[in-house]
Amino acid sequence: MTPQVQRYRPTLDEVSALAKRRGFVFQSSEIYGGAGGVWDYGPLGTELKRNVKQAWWREVVELRDDVVPFDAAILMHPQTWVASGHAATFHDKMVDCKVCKHRFRADHLASLEQCPDCGSKSSFTEPRNFNLMLKTFLGPAEDTASQVWLRPETAQGIFVNFKNVAQAARRKPPFGIAQVGKAFRNEITPGNFTFRTREFEQAELEFFVPPDGTDEQWYRAWVETRMRWYRRYLVEERVRFRELAKEELAHYAKSLTDVEYDFPWGWGELESIANRGAYDLNAHIKESKKDLAFFDEANKAKYVPIVVEASAGVDRTALALLIDAYDKQRYVDQNGKEAERVVLRFHSEIAPVKAAVFALARNKPELVERARTIERALRRVMRTQYDEGNIGQLYRRQDEIGTPWSVTVDYQTLEDGTVTLRDRDTMEQTRVSADQLAAVLVPRLIA
Amino acid sequence: MTPQVQRYRPTLDEVSALAKRRGFVFQSSEIYGGAGGVWDYGPLGTELKRNVKQAWWREVVELRDDVVPFDAAILMHPQTWVASGHAATFHDKMVDCKVCKHRFRADHLASLEQCPDCGSKSSFTEPRNFNLMLKTFLGPAEDTASQVWLRPETAQGIFVNFKNVAQAARRKPPFGIAQVGKAFRNEITPGNFTFRTREFEQAELEFFVPPDGTDEQWYRAWVETRMRWYRRYLVEERVRFRELAKEELAHYAKSLTDVEYDFPWGWGELESIANRGAYDLNAHIKESKKDLAFFDEANKAKYVPIVVEASAGVDRTALALLIDAYDKQRYVDQNGKEAERVVLRFHSEIAPVKAAVFALARNKPELVERARTIERALRRVMRTQYDEGNIGQLYRRQDEIGTPWSVTVDYQTLEDGTVTLRDRDTMEQTRVSADQLAAVLVPRLIA
Repeated sequence: MTPQVQRYRPTLDEVSALAKRRGFVFQSSEIYGGAGGVWDYGPLGTELKRNVKQAWWREVVELRDDVVPFDAAILMHPQTWVASGHAATFHDKMVDCKVCKHRFRADHLASLEQCPDCGSKSSFTEPRNFNLMLKTFLGPAEDTASQVWLRPETAQGIFVNFKNVAQAARRKPPFGIAQVGKAFRNEITPGNFTFRTREFEQAELEFFVPPDGTDEQWYRAWVETRMRWYRRYLVEERVRFRELAKEELAHYAKSLTDVEYDFPWGWGELESIANRGAYDLNAHIKESKKDLAFFDEANKAKYVPIVVEASAGVDRTALALLIDAYDKQRYVDQNGKEAERVVLRFHSEIAPVKAAVFALARNKPELVERARTIERALRRVMRTQYDEGNIGQLYRRQDEIGTPWSVTVDYQTLEDGTVTLRDRDTMEQTRVSADQLAAVLVPRLIA
Repeated sequence: MTPQVQRYRPTLDEVSALAKRRGFVFQSSEIYGGAGGVWDYGPLGTELKRNVKQAWWREVVELRDDVVPFDAAILMHPQTWVASGHAATFHDKMVDCKVCKHRFRADHLASLEQCPDCGSKSSFTEPRNFNLMLKTFLGPAEDTASQVWLRPETAQGIFVNFKNVAQAARRKPPFGIAQVGKAFRNEITPGNFTFRTREFEQAELEFFVPPDGTDEQWYRAWVETRMRWYRRYLVEERVRFRELAKEELAHYAKSLTDVEYDFPWGWGELESIANRGAYDLNAHIKESKKDLAFFDEANKAKYVPIVVEASAGVDRTALALLIDAYDKQRYVDQNGKEAERVVLRFHSEIAPVKAAVFALARNKPELVERARTIERALRRVMRTQYDEGNIGQLYRRQDEIGTPWSVTVDYQTLEDGTVTLRDRDTMEQTRVSADQLAAVLVPRLIA
């Protein structure tokens, strides 16, 4: 029903201003000036992000019989990152200006001739590797023996547990292990609101396939599955699935598709789906000297599975959904006047609040009481909000946070038990029996 | 129905062996020898923990109209921990043996006369404070200016955002802000399986109350609410609510109740519910010099709210539920023989798998196909598992992971469409129409 093609394209400032004002996202520890590249989610942002994670979880875990969930810790044995290659190669080249002591990413400087901050000429140190993992120390001593990293991705928690999971869950490839969790990267230049941050959340699937030539089929199937998912929630023209050419791939990868969204600053990656071959498990077999190969008892075969990975950024997806939903619409109001509204056209699964219930007048106890009773009943089956006062103002407030349905309790409710049900997108109003609200709205939640 | 009083009391070894074998909990990065005091959740443990968090979320957030959710980052501005007192006082006293260089918690040593590791006499350094927060560095430089802490509790993320949330969500006290998330403490002696760990998850509610004398009523109400919650899921005699005497309290706290579980090693804290006065907000007002007082427009009053906190450990609660559910039962089997089973008597809301669907014989395609069809349909409304083979063995497997219902598809199913529905606790079997399974079981999920 949504006129997707004509939907307004907001600036990042418009979106971040709304996000702050309505409580989607705040700067982390703002009262102390913030923590660089880190954000807090307010009440509506918390619901939005929960809905993103739940929609992913339902598609990737709950509705499938070939994927099991996992929840690895953020802190891991440091050798994990030696095996994965992060300890040696997960870095940016940095240079320091010897005069002003400021540090820069070498590839961000126009030239190494002149410092952009103090103007000194040829004053840079040699480029040095700067590892992007955040370090900490476990135990009482602060030395290299106690140094660990905050994981820069959740995937390795799955790889190192592959054999444990296969055994305990009695699974054999093809099967997947899925996980949602925080990861950390010491980005030199965090930015674009919640897009590039130092603390972020990933939703990752590692799907283990026997080396029987079916890995590219599984890779294609997962690309299709994830395409359907994104197209369910985002305007079609604003999402693209970009398959990399062979020469663009890491040496171990066989195929890779990036899911990208058309952000206000350009295309940005939401997810990456890749056929990674047996690289990851082999790296851990080599480093740990443990036998992580899978023994197929039925076929008396032993092999290291091939991994198809689908790795999504939860915060980036939430941001894309917020930007994508943002619409400005001119319309003719009930008095025949031209009006404009900001409306977040979230899919009902994604909307933080599903239904608002209003009392038409806040000084009429019988209306307030009836509205509160209706809201309380509806709250058991979906996220609701109660509000009261000027209906036009209440609608605008709910439009601005993307609430699909508004329910108004008015004088007619007291007579015949019906309420006004207003649709966010069409602004159409119908009268529905209050007793039937849940029965009418619940099926629409996943429509 | 469950004979709770006679329920078996497992040792911690019995529970942790089952947890490993069936995939509830693994040592973090086990293939590299583990990370000290950190654990990974396997497929069943992930579901168990999700269920604990969801049950908390439903009670504390979803079913209430006076609590809003929040999701603060793990990394915060370091001044946060100056205000909260953690930077100055969140530490243990440590001593080093000058001979063997080993470090000990001073209060864990029998005496400071002799090193328990190398036996040297009077060789200890003076006790020094060892802060329990984990540190890391944000940005390219590793110096004090870039040093931040991993939060040792989620609560401060709520306090520093109190005003942002009240404004954006248009809330006035009494109202609460709730959050679930990871926190980190550099425990010197982690132990008791997942009870005392360096990485853990909290579920915290901060409830803001006007200074109108109602704060103790709100405190009592939250103690009652949380009592009901724990008693819903745990054997009554194994949970206690211990109200601290005034002289046991921190100077700012007015009242505090610890929720404790009778673990195999003794009583251990699951949650703490406290009336903290205006201490936390005042500390941040002082440190940030920001006006975090609440202005009540309707009453032209301005005040710093009083905080009632309910702070629960998610991993500890999950562990208590696992231990609590563990039962060993002798019974007479179908052949009249004495038998014994291990059965996890999880509440159906908490059970990782709700229903298992079996094909009576794995070599009968029509049974397998029918069972898979039934499992697929049921999976849309609850967590399920498909399995096949020897029914007695399948029941034992499901009992051991606490699956409340097992559904067997047999030859009669092919004739009349009914299946055998077996109850985990009573072991009673009834025949139910396969078409009615969801209708029969869904209401029992929350019974």
